[in-house]
Amino acid sequence: MKVAFQGERGAYSEAASIAHFGEGIEPVPCESFDEVFASVESGAADRGAAPIENSLAGSIHRNYDLLLRHNLHIVGEKIFRVRHCLIAQPGAAMADIRRVSSHPQALAQCEHYIKRLGASIEPAYDTAGAVKLLKESGRRDAAAIASRRAAEVWGMQILEEGIEDDAANFTRFLILSRQPEPTTQPSKTSIVFSVRNVPGALFKALSVFALRDLDLTKIESRPIPGKTWEYMFYLDFAGNASEPVVVRALDHLREIATELRVLGSYPRDLSDAVS
Amino acid sequence: MKVAFQGERGAYSEAASIAHFGEGIEPVPCESFDEVFASVESGAADRGAAPIENSLAGSIHRNYDLLLRHNLHIVGEKIFRVRHCLIAQPGAAMADIRRVSSHPQALAQCEHYIKRLGASIEPAYDTAGAVKLLKESGRRDAAAIASRRAAEVWGMQILEEGIEDDAANFTRFLILSRQPEPTTQPSKTSIVFSVRNVPGALFKALSVFALRDLDLTKIESRPIPGKTWEYMFYLDFAGNASEPVVVRALDHLREIATELRVLGSYPRDLSDAVS
Repeated sequence: MKVAFQGERGAYSEAASIAHFGEGIEPVPCESFDEVFASVESGAADRGAAPIENSLAGSIHRNYDLLLRHNLHIVGEKIFRVRHCLIAQPGAAMADIRRVSSHPQALAQCEHYIKRLGASIEPAYDTAGAVKLLKESGRRDAAAIASRRAAEVWGMQILEEGIEDDAANFTRFLILSRQPEPTTQPSKTSIVFSVRNVPGALFKALSVFALRDLDLTKIESRPIPGKTWEYMFYLDFAGNASEPVVVRALDHLREIATELRVLGSYPRDLSDAVS
Repeated sequence: MKVAFQGERGAYSEAASIAHFGEGIEPVPCESFDEVFASVESGAADRGAAPIENSLAGSIHRNYDLLLRHNLHIVGEKIFRVRHCLIAQPGAAMADIRRVSSHPQALAQCEHYIKRLGASIEPAYDTAGAVKLLKESGRRDAAAIASRRAAEVWGMQILEEGIEDDAANFTRFLILSRQPEPTTQPSKTSIVFSVRNVPGALFKALSVFALRDLDLTKIESRPIPGKTWEYMFYLDFAGNASEPVVVRALDHLREIATELRVLGSYPRDLSDAVS
């Protein structure tokens, strides 16, 4: 199974894909999130893995927008614990490190650690990409911050693991496919809808879930292109679009919403769930 | 009046501050959004101007988080039309331009224009900062994308104005102060609250507005630090916290919310409003 993800080999998205599907996948690294969606749509990849939310940093908006722009189905989710590693050339020692490079968000999440190290920082376009560039440079006074997998893929040394300032660092990935995948497991459903710009409209939309005790797990608003200060709402809720109560809730929502699209029903990832 | 904003002199935040307060202000450029909030809190500046939302790109999350972290009051809003200018050395001609630098979001908003120009792009930390760097470099084959004001402040030439791909490009700025400013004008109120993680909680919270026909203009969710997959909700609604109906709605919300803070009531900017 070919799985598309954004970043170089060893990216957190690759690590999450393997945690979800197992070691047997064929990784399809992509330069951008757009390319991930396009690869699945064209058939160049069988599945895509896209981060949608980090427990510390919040939503990844680009991917919300791409869900709307492409006609893919969400067929799974994977909640992946982000454990940052300080990665250097084989044989390099901690005392050699003067400079640390990574994606700005990873650098921010290891801010205190880097300060204690007394190293300067250098932003890179990608965590695993920083490891690749470090390897190519041959520098022994520099390190990169990325996943354990990135160190393995690029044959580099892990100087320290778990260097993030806040250990409760989880990223939720969506698994994308051209076709829906029916499931009987406890599910989540993701939808996107818009309502008329009148008082009480969002309240009425949420009533279709509240009146049926359907638990919302996430709400996100995004601007509607071409309609200034109007929003699309992305909702996740517990339940599967094949269950009668969910069918009724969505029928009810169609009476209220000006647009509604079901992005997918998929097994809820309860393995790493934290409350 | 000293007004703090993020960016170099000529930043869009400075232009918006002048559009709001008039030419008499003393600009206080800051390196980061954090510094803007800190400057107002410490008294180094009388007011701060912080972008909170762009009509195309969406919310500026860092500033939502800083509203919670600092004890400032929102005392105004300014909706500012973003009109990007192609800015070059005095005397340089359009045909000379091979390279365009700016903040990545400005580059993205002028993507088609830059493609037609056949120029390569170079990301910068700041729109007005790109103009400053261009001036210092003396290069005649490069241009920067920034506000008209940035060209004026740095004594540079505007080659073309209004080069954004989508003209419906507005940024909403919040005006911050240490003290609230009572107003009798048509108002908006901004609040932030959290609810228990149980089915129907958000619905109940929104009911306090819907039951009183108070119009919500924005809802935004942000992760709660230390509580994985729990959220703070930021709400803007039409009305002033001094009006009896708003007092009652907020009292009602206090019964439902686990935390509630009123960030401010302030005159609604209707001047540039688009529907």
